[in-house]
Parts: sequence; structure tokens; C-alpha cells
Amino acid sequence: MHSSPAMERLAASLKRLPGIGEKSAARLAYFLLSAPDSLLTELADAVGRLKSDTVICGRCFNLSDRSPCRVCADPRRDAGLICVVEEPADLAAVEKSGCFRGLYHVLGGTLSPIDGMGPESLRIDELAKRIAAGGVGEVILATNPNAEGDATAHFIADRLAKSGVRLSRIACGMPLGGDLEYADHVTVGRSLENRREIS
Amino acid sequence: MHSSPAMERLAASLKRLPGIGEKSAARLAYFLLSAPDSLLTELADAVGRLKSDTVICGRCFNLSDRSPCRVCADPRRDAGLICVVEEPADLAAVEKSGCFRGLYHVLGGTLSPIDGMGPESLRIDELAKRIAAGGVGEVILATNPNAEGDATAHFIADRLAKSGVRLSRIACGMPLGGDLEYADHVTVGRSLENRREIS
Repeated sequence: MHSSPAMERLAASLKRLPGIGEKSAARLAYFLLSAPDSLLTELADAVGRLKSDTVICGRCFNLSDRSPCRVCADPRRDAGLICVVEEPADLAAVEKSGCFRGLYHVLGGTLSPIDGMGPESLRIDELAKRIAAGGVGEVILATNPNAEGDATAHFIADRLAKSGVRLSRIACGMPLGGDLEYADHVTVGRSLENRREIS
Repeated sequence: MHSSPAMERLAASLKRLPGIGEKSAARLAYFLLSAPDSLLTELADAVGRLKSDTVICGRCFNLSDRSPCRVCADPRRDAGLICVVEEPADLAAVEKSGCFRGLYHVLGGTLSPIDGMGPESLRIDELAKRIAAGGVGEVILATNPNAEGDATAHFIADRLAKSGVRLSRIACGMPLGGDLEYADHVTVGRSLENRREIS
């Protein structure tokens, strides 16, 4: 960029974000220069206050503005059902499905020995404590259906085996609207293995 | 998103930027939450001060932090040569090529009757005044090689025809490293029309 230092400074900051390269950063900077002042004020304010206004729920470890979070504090949610997810973004995806009315537990990642992520790096003890406190009937292990997610789900299932709580894993198969021709073979294989009888 | 209001506010602001959809906005918001404080401070500051720290050069209409801008104020640049571009981003592209040591003139767009952009919407009078002031030997019309850019270049060439200044248009042909097989037919046609004798 050969424009104003203010533009170059903004483009340099934007370039540090994931998925934004030099050209995108320049394009965004030019866009913002001609955008309404209100958008710039909003954006600067939202970035500046992001961390101070965000807390982690002490019960489920979701991101929130309070602890316990809105989900944990909602008396209409089923406290007997806990959905275990890797990250807050996964929790958001489950909430968006509108199919789950229980509570959550955010692990903070998956087991990954290569990256130094052992069981002590995840919030597994905290999950065991929530179950030991009683009142939980079922734990749905909703870690992602890949090697790390599967290993983590199995590890947690072993750990909770004697707790007496029912343990389940999210279903794996063809995505809705998918096409067998274009799906990867592992997904097709899973959709055959996990076939359900038509009643 | 079903996380903190601070995250949702940031994602909502980011979503208003071009090329950033709902998923990208959420991903950026999660990234920023775990990014170093210095990046957030820098970004908020760069956005907040963008407009107040940017001025338009009164001579060439480039973006700068001062008027005249660094290019116009540089005594080593050739003041007898003016490169006319549509937008500041085009000026940046020409500067980056390292092949031009003259001055610029930013039009602020192209002629486009459909969008209500007539000659009076562009900085053509300002260009004519710079040339009338004397000292300019050549004007390179570097508007983009498309219908609007070509029409704008021709309009300016007509307007300046009697000024006595030499007028030129940037070359059009195959991009370096391009492949005839994959180039669009208009580009291939131009590269044939504009062929140069090998001396």
C-alpha cells in the first residue's frame, strides 16, 4: 500500500487475522475508509471491549457475559442431560440446531499427545465432578467425528463408565442433502455401519 | 452464535464488512478472543483513527496523512509525467510495480452513466487545470482496461487533445506468466492486435 500511514496501520492489523491476506486487508481498509462512521465506531468498540466483556461460565465453560451462563441459569433446560463439546463454537452449532434442551460441558479441545494435550489439559475432572454431584441421567459425547474427537469420546466414556450415567455418542453418517457420489468413503462407510431399520 | 453478547456484537460488526459472512465473522471473533491483547488494541485503535488520520492530497487526490502527499512532495519524482488512475488502490498497484517515477492523478472512478457518474463526478477539471498550469509533458491514462475504463480514457484524451501534452494508454495483452489456453478471448485478441515487432 502506498497510501496514508493510517491505512497501512489498519491493513497491517487486519493482515494478522486468519484468512485475511495482503489484498483482502487492503480492500477492507479501503472499504472502511468510505464506510459510515457508525460502523467504524461499533467495530473499534466491539474489538476493544471483547475480552473485558467476556467471561467463562464456571459450570459449563461456555463463553458468556456472566457465570453461570444463560444456558446454565435457564430453569427450563434439562439439567439431567449434558452435551460434551470440544469448543464454544461447537456449542453454538448445537444450540443453532434447536434440537437440544439440556446443558453443556465445553472440554476446551481434544486429546492430542502430539500437541501436548493430555487429559489434564481438558476439563474432564470438572465433568466428572458435575456428574458425581448427582442429577445427571445422560452424557452425550459430541466431540467431532474425527480421530482426536473419537479418542477423546472413548477416553471420557472409560472414565465415566462406573458413574452409572448413560453415555451416548452423536450419530455419524451422510449429511442431509449430501450425495453418495461426492461424499468421502469414510462417511459412506459409517452411514452403512450405522444404518437404521425402517419401522 | 450462542456465546457472550460481546462476541455477538463483534461478529455482527465484522459481518458488515465485504467478503465476511456469518461463519467467517464467528471464526474471527473466536480468534480475537484468544489473540494477544496487543493485537486487539492495535486493531481497535487503527479502526477508530482511520478517518481522522487520513486526508486526501489536494493535488493528486491520493490518500495520505498530509497534503500535498509524499509522492507530490517528493522532489525526485518527475513532475512532467502524470499517471491517471481510477482509485487510490490503482495508484498503490502502480507504485508497487516500481516502474513509475512520475506523479499521479486519482479520478475517483470512471464514467458510468447508468450509475449517474458523468464527467462532473470525476476529477477531470482538476486534471485539466494541472496541465494548464504547465510543465507536464505526458499523461498516461491508466484507467482499467474494461468498457468503463476505456470510455473514460477516451473521454479524457478528447478533452486534453488541444492541450499539446502527449497522451498514452497502458498496454493491454497477455499477463506475464499467463497461458493462451486459459486466457479470455478478449485478452488474447488484444495481445494479437497490440503485437510488437521483435527488433
